[in-house]
Amino acid sequence: MFMNRRTVRIEWGDCDPAGIVFYPRYMAMFDHSTVLLLEAALGCNKHELYKAYDFDGYPMVEARARFLIPTRYCDEVVIETTVKEVRRTSIHVRHSLMKDGALAVEGFESRVWVVRDKHRPGRFKPQPIPAEIVERLTAIAPP
Amino acid sequence: MFMNRRTVRIEWGDCDPAGIVFYPRYMAMFDHSTVLLLEAALGCNKHELYKAYDFDGYPMVEARARFLIPTRYCDEVVIETTVKEVRRTSIHVRHSLMKDGALAVEGFESRVWVVRDKHRPGRFKPQPIPAEIVERLTAIAPP
Amino acid sequence: MFMNRRTVRIEWGDCDPAGIVFYPRYMAMFDHSTVLLLEAALGCNKHELYKAYDFDGYPMVEARARFLIPTRYCDEVVIETTVKEVRRTSIHVRHSLMKDGALAVEGFESRVWVVRDKHRPGRFKPQPIPAEIVERLTAIAPP
Amino acid sequence: MFMNRRTVRIEWGDCDPAGIVFYPRYMAMFDHSTVLLLEAALGCNKHELYKAYDFDGYPMVEARARFLIPTRYCDEVVIETTVKEVRRTSIHVRHSLMKDGALAVEGFESRVWVVRDKHRPGRFKPQPIPAEIVERLTAIAPP
Repeated sequence: MFMNRRTVRIEWGDCDPAGIVFYPRYMAMFDHSTVLLLEAALGCNKHELYKAYDFDGYPMVEARARFLIPTRYCDEVVIETTVKEVRRTSIHVRHSLMKDGALAVEGFESRVWVVRDKHRPGRFKPQPIPAEIVERLTAIAPP
Repeated sequence: MFMNRRTVRIEWGDCDPAGIVFYPRYMAMFDHSTVLLLEAALGCNKHELYKAYDFDGYPMVEARARFLIPTRYCDEVVIETTVKEVRRTSIHVRHSLMKDGALAVEGFESRVWVVRDKHRPGRFKPQPIPAEIVERLTAIAPP
Repeated sequence: MFMNRRTVRIEWGDCDPAGIVFYPRYMAMFDHSTVLLLEAALGCNKHELYKAYDFDGYPMVEARARFLIPTRYCDEVVIETTVKEVRRTSIHVRHSLMKDGALAVEGFESRVWVVRDKHRPGRFKPQPIPAEIVERLTAIAPP
Repeated sequence: MFMNRRTVRIEWGDCDPAGIVFYPRYMAMFDHSTVLLLEAALGCNKHELYKAYDFDGYPMVEARARFLIPTRYCDEVVIETTVKEVRRTSIHVRHSLMKDGALAVEGFESRVWVVRDKHRPGRFKPQPIPAEIVERLTAIAPP
C-alpha cells in the first residue's frame, strides 16, 4: 500500500497553556498528511482531481486517534501516513506520529469519495473510486 | 450522568474551500464543550482545580468522531456533552452535535486525570480522580 | 455608524504555552465580529449577499492591531465592532476588545467589496458598494 | 540586520469557502517565522532563553499586515522575515510573503522583551534586551 512520510516541527502556536500540542492541531497535521499522501500517490492535486473526474472531495466520515506521548514546541516529529484499505467508495488511512523514534500519536481515518448530491442541496453522495486511482493507492510506495 | 448543552454558530473561518467545516474545528468545539461540562459539573474552572488539587490537567488519550451531515457557515448547531463513564483515573465523554434536530457529528473522548511525572520530565502520569469530583461527574444533571 | 457588540469567552485552545491568547486567535474573533456586524447591518448573511448582488466577498486588504492587556482562558471579553468609514469600494472597521471594562486589544481593518476578475483567474477586483448597503452601514445602530 | 527565509506550502485547511487563505492563518505563519528568525539569530530556542535569561517571552504589542494577492491551497510561498529595528526593550520585524516572486502579503510586528510583573499578577513588564542579543539581531545575516 502507498505510504508517505514527512517531518513536522511543532510550533509555539500549536501548543496550549499546559505546554503540549492542543490536540485538534494534530488533526490538522493529519489532514494535510492525507492530502500529501494522495498527491504523491496520484501525481496530482485536488484542483486537478476536480477537473479530471466527477469528484467533489474526500470528506472524513470517521476519525480516531490515540495520544501516547505529549509533544511540544521545538519537537521535530515524523508523520508516516499509510493507505490501509481502499473499498469501493472509501479510503482508510493510518497516521503514525513518531517522536525520537517512539510512537507519540496514532491516527486512523476513513474518507469517502464523493460528488455533490443534486437531489439534496448542501449534501454529498459516495461515488465509486476510479479504477486507476484505486490502483495507485494500493501500489507499493517507491522506496 | 452529568450533561451540558450549548449552541454554537458555525463561523466563516471554520470552513474549508468545499464550504464545509474543516473537521479539526469540530475537535476544538468538542474540547471547549468538555471544559464547559467540567466547569458546570465541578463548579470551578481549571485554574481553580490546579490550586485545589494535586492536578496538572485532563489530557486526551483517545478521541473518535463520526461525521454524518456536513455543516457550514451560518448553521446553528447544538452540542450535547454527556459523561458516559468515570473510572479510577479516566473520564469518558460523548458529544452529539445536532443540526436541525438531526445528529450531524458524534464524538467520543477518553481523558486521564494527571499530574506531572517528576521522574520523567515533560511527561504526565495518571492520578486517581478525587472522590468528590467523581460524585459530581456521575450526578444527574439539573434539568 | 453601525455598531455591533458581542461577548466572547476565551477558550483553553485559544491560549499558548505562556497562558495568554495566541494573537492570530484575536484575528479570527475579529473576522467573525465583522461578519456579524455586516449580518446585523444588512439583515442578511454572505450566502444571501452572493445571491442578491454581483458580489464575491469582502476580503481584507489591511489589518492592524494593538495588544495592550493579555487575556487568558476563562476571561469573558466584550468585542465592540464599529463601522468607521465607508468609501466607494471599501469598508473600514474598528474592533475594541474590552476586559473588565479596560481596552485589551484594538483592531482596525480595511476590506474591499469585490467580484471575481474574469480577466485574471484566481484574482478579485473592487466593485462599488451598492447604495442601499452603504446606507445601512452608515446608519446609526439601534440602541 | 538579521534575515531568515522559509518556504511554506498553503494547506487545504488554511483556506476558507472563498478558496483563499483565511487571513488569521497568515498571522500564525508570521508568528512562527519570527520564532524561527530569533532561533536562527540567537542560536537557541525559547525554552533555552527562559533558562538563560530573566525572560518570559516577547509578546506582540502591535501587528499590521497588507494583503495584496490572494494565495490558495497548493501555492508555495516564500516568507522573508527581517529585523527592522531593535530598541531598548522592543524588536521590530517585517515579513514579506512572496508568491511567484511577487509580494502577496506584507506584515509588520512590534514585540516587547518581557518578564512577569510580580506586582500585577497575570501581567508582564518590558525589560531591556540583553546586549549580546541586540548584537546578534542587528548583525548581517549570513548569505
